[in-house]
Amino acid sequence: MKIPVRKTGKKAGAPPGTIMHLGEHKTYRVKITRVNYDENNYSEKEDISVDELFTPHPGFNVEWVNFDGIHDVEMVERIGSHYGINMLVLEDIVNSSQRPKFEDYDDYVYIVLRMLKYDEAKNETESEQVSIILNHDKVLTFQEKESDDFESIRERIRKKKGKLHRSGPDFLCYSIIDFIIDNYFIVLEKIGDRIDILEEEVLGDTEEQTIQKLHSLKRDTLAIRKSLWPIRDILGFMLKPDNTIITDSTRLFLRDAYDHTVEAIETVEVYRDFISGLLDINLSRMSNRMNEIVKVLTLISTIFIPLTFIAGVYGMNFRVMPELEWRFGYYSIMVLMLLIAVMMLFYFRKKRWF
Amino acid sequence: MKIPVRKTGKKAGAPPGTIMHLGEHKTYRVKITRVNYDENNYSEKEDISVDELFTPHPGFNVEWVNFDGIHDVEMVERIGSHYGINMLVLEDIVNSSQRPKFEDYDDYVYIVLRMLKYDEAKNETESEQVSIILNHDKVLTFQEKESDDFESIRERIRKKKGKLHRSGPDFLCYSIIDFIIDNYFIVLEKIGDRIDILEEEVLGDTEEQTIQKLHSLKRDTLAIRKSLWPIRDILGFMLKPDNTIITDSTRLFLRDAYDHTVEAIETVEVYRDFISGLLDINLSRMSNRMNEIVKVLTLISTIFIPLTFIAGVYGMNFRVMPELEWRFGYYSIMVLMLLIAVMMLFYFRKKRWF
Amino acid sequence: MKIPVRKTGKKAGAPPGTIMHLGEHKTYRVKITRVNYDENNYSEKEDISVDELFTPHPGFNVEWVNFDGIHDVEMVERIGSHYGINMLVLEDIVNSSQRPKFEDYDDYVYIVLRMLKYDEAKNETESEQVSIILNHDKVLTFQEKESDDFESIRERIRKKKGKLHRSGPDFLCYSIIDFIIDNYFIVLEKIGDRIDILEEEVLGDTEEQTIQKLHSLKRDTLAIRKSLWPIRDILGFMLKPDNTIITDSTRLFLRDAYDHTVEAIETVEVYRDFISGLLDINLSRMSNRMNEIVKVLTLISTIFIPLTFIAGVYGMNFRVMPELEWRFGYYSIMVLMLLIAVMMLFYFRKKRWF
Amino acid sequence: MKIPVRKTGKKAGAPPGTIMHLGEHKTYRVKITRVNYDENNYSEKEDISVDELFTPHPGFNVEWVNFDGIHDVEMVERIGSHYGINMLVLEDIVNSSQRPKFEDYDDYVYIVLRMLKYDEAKNETESEQVSIILNHDKVLTFQEKESDDFESIRERIRKKKGKLHRSGPDFLCYSIIDFIIDNYFIVLEKIGDRIDILEEEVLGDTEEQTIQKLHSLKRDTLAIRKSLWPIRDILGFMLKPDNTIITDSTRLFLRDAYDHTVEAIETVEVYRDFISGLLDINLSRMSNRMNEIVKVLTLISTIFIPLTFIAGVYGMNFRVMPELEWRFGYYSIMVLMLLIAVMMLFYFRKKRWF
Amino acid sequence: MKIPVRKTGKKAGAPPGTIMHLGEHKTYRVKITRVNYDENNYSEKEDISVDELFTPHPGFNVEWVNFDGIHDVEMVERIGSHYGINMLVLEDIVNSSQRPKFEDYDDYVYIVLRMLKYDEAKNETESEQVSIILNHDKVLTFQEKESDDFESIRERIRKKKGKLHRSGPDFLCYSIIDFIIDNYFIVLEKIGDRIDILEEEVLGDTEEQTIQKLHSLKRDTLAIRKSLWPIRDILGFMLKPDNTIITDSTRLFLRDAYDHTVEAIETVEVYRDFISGLLDINLSRMSNRMNEIVKVLTLISTIFIPLTFIAGVYGMNFRVMPELEWRFGYYSIMVLMLLIAVMMLFYFRKKRWF
Repeated sequence: MKIPVRKTGKKAGAPPGTIMHLGEHKTYRVKITRVNYDENNYSEKEDISVDELFTPHPGFNVEWVNFDGIHDVEMVERIGSHYGINMLVLEDIVNSSQRPKFEDYDDYVYIVLRMLKYDEAKNETESEQVSIILNHDKVLTFQEKESDDFESIRERIRKKKGKLHRSGPDFLCYSIIDFIIDNYFIVLEKIGDRIDILEEEVLGDTEEQTIQKLHSLKRDTLAIRKSLWPIRDILGFMLKPDNTIITDSTRLFLRDAYDHTVEAIETVEVYRDFISGLLDINLSRMSNRMNEIVKVLTLISTIFIPLTFIAGVYGMNFRVMPELEWRFGYYSIMVLMLLIAVMMLFYFRKKRWF
Repeated sequence: MKIPVRKTGKKAGAPPGTIMHLGEHKTYRVKITRVNYDENNYSEKEDISVDELFTPHPGFNVEWVNFDGIHDVEMVERIGSHYGINMLVLEDIVNSSQRPKFEDYDDYVYIVLRMLKYDEAKNETESEQVSIILNHDKVLTFQEKESDDFESIRERIRKKKGKLHRSGPDFLCYSIIDFIIDNYFIVLEKIGDRIDILEEEVLGDTEEQTIQKLHSLKRDTLAIRKSLWPIRDILGFMLKPDNTIITDSTRLFLRDAYDHTVEAIETVEVYRDFISGLLDINLSRMSNRMNEIVKVLTLISTIFIPLTFIAGVYGMNFRVMPELEWRFGYYSIMVLMLLIAVMMLFYFRKKRWF
Repeated sequence: MKIPVRKTGKKAGAPPGTIMHLGEHKTYRVKITRVNYDENNYSEKEDISVDELFTPHPGFNVEWVNFDGIHDVEMVERIGSHYGINMLVLEDIVNSSQRPKFEDYDDYVYIVLRMLKYDEAKNETESEQVSIILNHDKVLTFQEKESDDFESIRERIRKKKGKLHRSGPDFLCYSIIDFIIDNYFIVLEKIGDRIDILEEEVLGDTEEQTIQKLHSLKRDTLAIRKSLWPIRDILGFMLKPDNTIITDSTRLFLRDAYDHTVEAIETVEVYRDFISGLLDINLSRMSNRMNEIVKVLTLISTIFIPLTFIAGVYGMNFRVMPELEWRFGYYSIMVLMLLIAVMMLFYFRKKRWF
Repeated sequence: MKIPVRKTGKKAGAPPGTIMHLGEHKTYRVKITRVNYDENNYSEKEDISVDELFTPHPGFNVEWVNFDGIHDVEMVERIGSHYGINMLVLEDIVNSSQRPKFEDYDDYVYIVLRMLKYDEAKNETESEQVSIILNHDKVLTFQEKESDDFESIRERIRKKKGKLHRSGPDFLCYSIIDFIIDNYFIVLEKIGDRIDILEEEVLGDTEEQTIQKLHSLKRDTLAIRKSLWPIRDILGFMLKPDNTIITDSTRLFLRDAYDHTVEAIETVEVYRDFISGLLDINLSRMSNRMNEIVKVLTLISTIFIPLTFIAGVYGMNFRVMPELEWRFGYYSIMVLMLLIAVMMLFYFRKKRWF
Repeated sequence: MKIPVRKTGKKAGAPPGTIMHLGEHKTYRVKITRVNYDENNYSEKEDISVDELFTPHPGFNVEWVNFDGIHDVEMVERIGSHYGINMLVLEDIVNSSQRPKFEDYDDYVYIVLRMLKYDEAKNETESEQVSIILNHDKVLTFQEKESDDFESIRERIRKKKGKLHRSGPDFLCYSIIDFIIDNYFIVLEKIGDRIDILEEEVLGDTEEQTIQKLHSLKRDTLAIRKSLWPIRDILGFMLKPDNTIITDSTRLFLRDAYDHTVEAIETVEVYRDFISGLLDINLSRMSNRMNEIVKVLTLISTIFIPLTFIAGVYGMNFRVMPELEWRFGYYSIMVLMLLIAVMMLFYFRKKRWF
């Protein structure tokens, strides 16, 4: 996972409020899904055009329009002028590397979040920007990527599970945020699993790749942390009672989401501590292992070097070397060398050097 | 001890307030213990059924119902609807990896804590979630695991020790929290003991396992820290005078518990610092020890290598090598070699290399 | 990039309000550019003299005077007394190592910022002090260096892009600040790119220069951090509603700039963390690589040392050494040596030492 | 010095307010010293019994009762009920591992502190718990250990030094706290001295014990820190003007004590930083020294190994080896070897390897 | 520079307000300089006696008395009683290791600061305590050391530079503080220079002394930090509008001084970070350099060891060793050895081991 950084591109000096898509270039058509519901009714229109969206239609209590894709700048501008959204907000919607934030424009609020998804197949964490515009009867959601992730929430409205279908747009907004925070926990669980595996690796049979894996884990926690911290502030703003778009009954649930965010943050911090510890231990274990090898090899050399010296002495060609003439000279020397080797081994053992 | 992390399982996207047990699967029957008491009376019923619990019974001043087990989701739902408890609270009760927290629902308060228990037999610290619901005349406690830990508190009511039997449910709630905090100190003492042992190991005869032991200690302190920090906030909330369920006389005791929590937190922080220091010292001592060995071995090699060279020289087969013909050539060379060895030893000693 | 430090030179003890240029000595003439505009009109005069600046001229709504260079102390003094600017402010304008700050003098506000520019050609980040004086109908900007950087802003006024030409001097002031903050993001993106390259270098084929590159990156982040942090405070002050020079509509945009600054700060902090991590990993990888080499070399020595010893033994000149007379003595010994070598290799392999 | 940790012993679950001594078992009789004084009078009774203490006696303005020892639980209970002290306070007095704290019980205040004493003879820092109960005309002090440390304060009252004998019990209480804080500075000065000695050791002739000494210093600072931090809070509480037991004139002096505490805390923090730095430098110096040795030894080996190889070549027994027959073969080879050795030395020197 | 620590000496237990000089013993006579001035007049008397100071004299608007030396306790006591200064203040004036602080005694304020001076000759930073007492018409300054440092400020009054001679004593007090803060910047610039030199040393040709130099730099920054932090608080107190001794016009200048202090603090923090980074890089570079040497030496050994073995083989004295009889045996073996050496070199080169 890359650490998300706001991109300005060549834009520096462009007037603020310039709507310009700065993510990767994409060509597919933005899919628009409109859901209207109240306690008893439910209507859903998938893949409609902007014109269709703007034509009058039977609106129940709540209208939710979801956009899969933010690269169609022209469309975003039309939507903005139709719903009366500030240019600065539109600029943020299409810039796919926003820092999560909450902005209150009296008759609507604007929320940007970063959604994490764990891709089981690729074994990778992906991140995507989600913008939410909430007013008294509408929720607009803008997703950066093509795949629609909110099917499970629509399912809950359709099947009338929980209190979602009976509540207003603020509760729908809460449900989306809650869904996004839940996804953080799923990613954190995966990271927890990877930490567990790496811990075993580090304490067991450590290898050089372990360092790379730990480093990539660390990078992931840094990225999650950067996306997660602002969510706490966003929820803190939403919990303040001076906002009329959000009702008190929803606020109760937002408090719950706030607590979850705090917990996720704490978990990330604990993970960071833990990964740092593992990096240190890995380092020290690798160096210990290496030292252990070098020590054994050095021990072997140390035992043979004096013996080789003795052999060298009796390989000298001096004319007068009485030992050479002794009948048991060779055998005595061999025994002597054995004795020296044994004594050295004994001494090293006593010193607990191996 | 594992670091407690909130589990979402496959739940992401489920409507909030979905009551779903996410801990290990358990099959034993939840044991319900009901205690009723006032200053003069005491009645206790163990292992009753939910129906029995709901039938009218002579209630003295305070009623305390303890549940050993939170896996029976259906039962929790029945209890919730009988006592009028919010769905979000029930969801938290059955999810066994909650972050400790305090929630005030006007006519009752909800507290989640993590209780640590030191298992003397296994030499392990276990942790368990305890949920407390407190209203004006009742305390409900939900323990995650089968074993009942509150016997000592019941004993105090039965034997009319202290002021517990004379006080209201808020004091009972305080007594339970105090009991849980006391258990933290017991675990901290055990950790202190382990640190003392490891300190000696590190400063004395350090071994490779020491690193694993220190790492496991560090992990324990991280886990305790994560459970302990929120307790301070919980007690902070309970100390605020705007809550009518908790009486002022109990608040005096809660202030005491607050101080203990602060102290426990400080102790954990000091321990973390200390363990980090030990890890560093351990590392440096191991590397010193290794270096010491390599140094001695290298010294030995260094003394013999020049000698071996000399022996090699006089092992050459040149026809004309006058020294070889000398009568005392062999002896002179042996003496020379001895001299060289002694001088080198002397030099190394002077340089304080061994 | 150097870490910017306030210079006092020999000035300590000089009376406060002493106007003294303390940057490098420069001789070029300060270029003055005057722009006057309102919604419909635009007039621009480049490279005018101070006298010309002070002569009456047709003023539209907003007047913007830009000074390229702050080394002409005398000129700054004339300007100060003409526009009625406090001596302390003039002192700060000419001292090119000011800490970014905001000061409110009732009828005008004074802002100092540090502008970063990434010089594509030199592959270097340059920094420059920008002072802004803003009152009800005028903006004065003082740039430390010769090159004029605000052309793109003038272009926007000229071409009537966005709402700049329709707004007052406070919006012009915002646009300048926004431009400066955008430049921080460009520099941060470049740093992000350098980090990516270095990350590959560290995890791939690490070299000694990597350390110097990482160190220079770290120095850059330290310098950016020092310039960036105070900008948040400056914008915080400008957002406070008690200032009449800044209008509410501009404040909305300043809030946006504030959010960007917070994000830039967070990015710098994440980068610092990340670079520290890379330094650690680089260190450990270099030492691992070195250890790997030493290990292989030691392995080779260890295999040959016992063999050399055996050869030495049979090179001894004892008269009685029965093996020497054996017919297949030589071959047997060669085979023995081969066996020993193979066994050692086998053993080392089994121990996973290579 | 041990890090002070609150002990619960087997107490977990005991009712709060259970008075139980948890320090080491002690048998000596608690010594009670009663001092009564006002501006003109002074009476002192040493080693009186509890009954004597409770019998009516001529009380001047201020009464100060000091208890040397807190292990006599029964006595503490009698004193508590006689003076009307809360059970929770009595519990804290006898538990000798309290965290320093301040508690305001309207008609009296309760203060726990940890006093450090530097034992010149043993070259060790000892710590002891001091409890102070202060009401409108009385000060009770409870010391954990036998030795009485407050003689110097009594001396000041007797000799009418300063304003102590002219002031009320709150000033006596301040004088005791001031005395305890002064003792922290004495201990800090000793630690400063030890740091100075160790700094020289680290930068000069570093040895392995240095690590243990630095570690023990670090432990001491951790322990002092844990005792010192809460004192700031205690004094902060005492400085609040809503307490009638403490007069405004004494508050002036308490502010002074507060400043001293802050300074002591800062000193401890600086020392911690400094000791960490010394540990790092010590580590790197030891490893450098070791490397230096290994380098020299390796140099020696490296010079002799090629020479030994040459000698080995001419020790081969090939029938046809023309050099062996040369008249000056031996001498030429010796000169060649000398040349090689000199060239290698020269090369290593040029590379600045020794 | 030593880290300044408050000394208590044997004083612990002495009554508070005991005036006792605790710095080094000094014998020179304290030099008293009295300056009286208003907008038009200026009178200066150097080296007067205390009696002379107390005799009536023509006072202009502002009187400034400077004392060079604080060791004459008796004199300080006389001055204190003459000007009506609190005993606690006098105690702090003579104790030369005070923590910088600000105290407001209604009719006068008391400020203690630590002044740094960079001694160009000794290449050392010296520190000195400066106490300032300011009331409505007088400034008393007490310097710890003999040399008078405020000549430049007197010069400004004499020559009527700036607004100092036209302002009241509060502006004089500000000028002194500003002078002291300016001196911090001079010292910080020197430290910046030393860091630059050390950075080159670390990245270029690192040596063992570098570590000591970096350590001494670190110590200096720790000491400066300890003196600098409290100054921010002091100025913060002086900026509060509830003090009548300081006029609003001076407060404008104090705000400037406050900003400078904040900048100095930030610079110290950046320097600390930077020095830590240099220490780390130094360490890693030294160890790399050492490893590089050991690697080359090991390479040489590794090449010769197999060759020496081969020579050893053909130095064996077996009767039957056919190779020895071959006509070109010797030459073949020499070629074989050359081949082996070249192959090893080639292999090592391919592996990029040298």
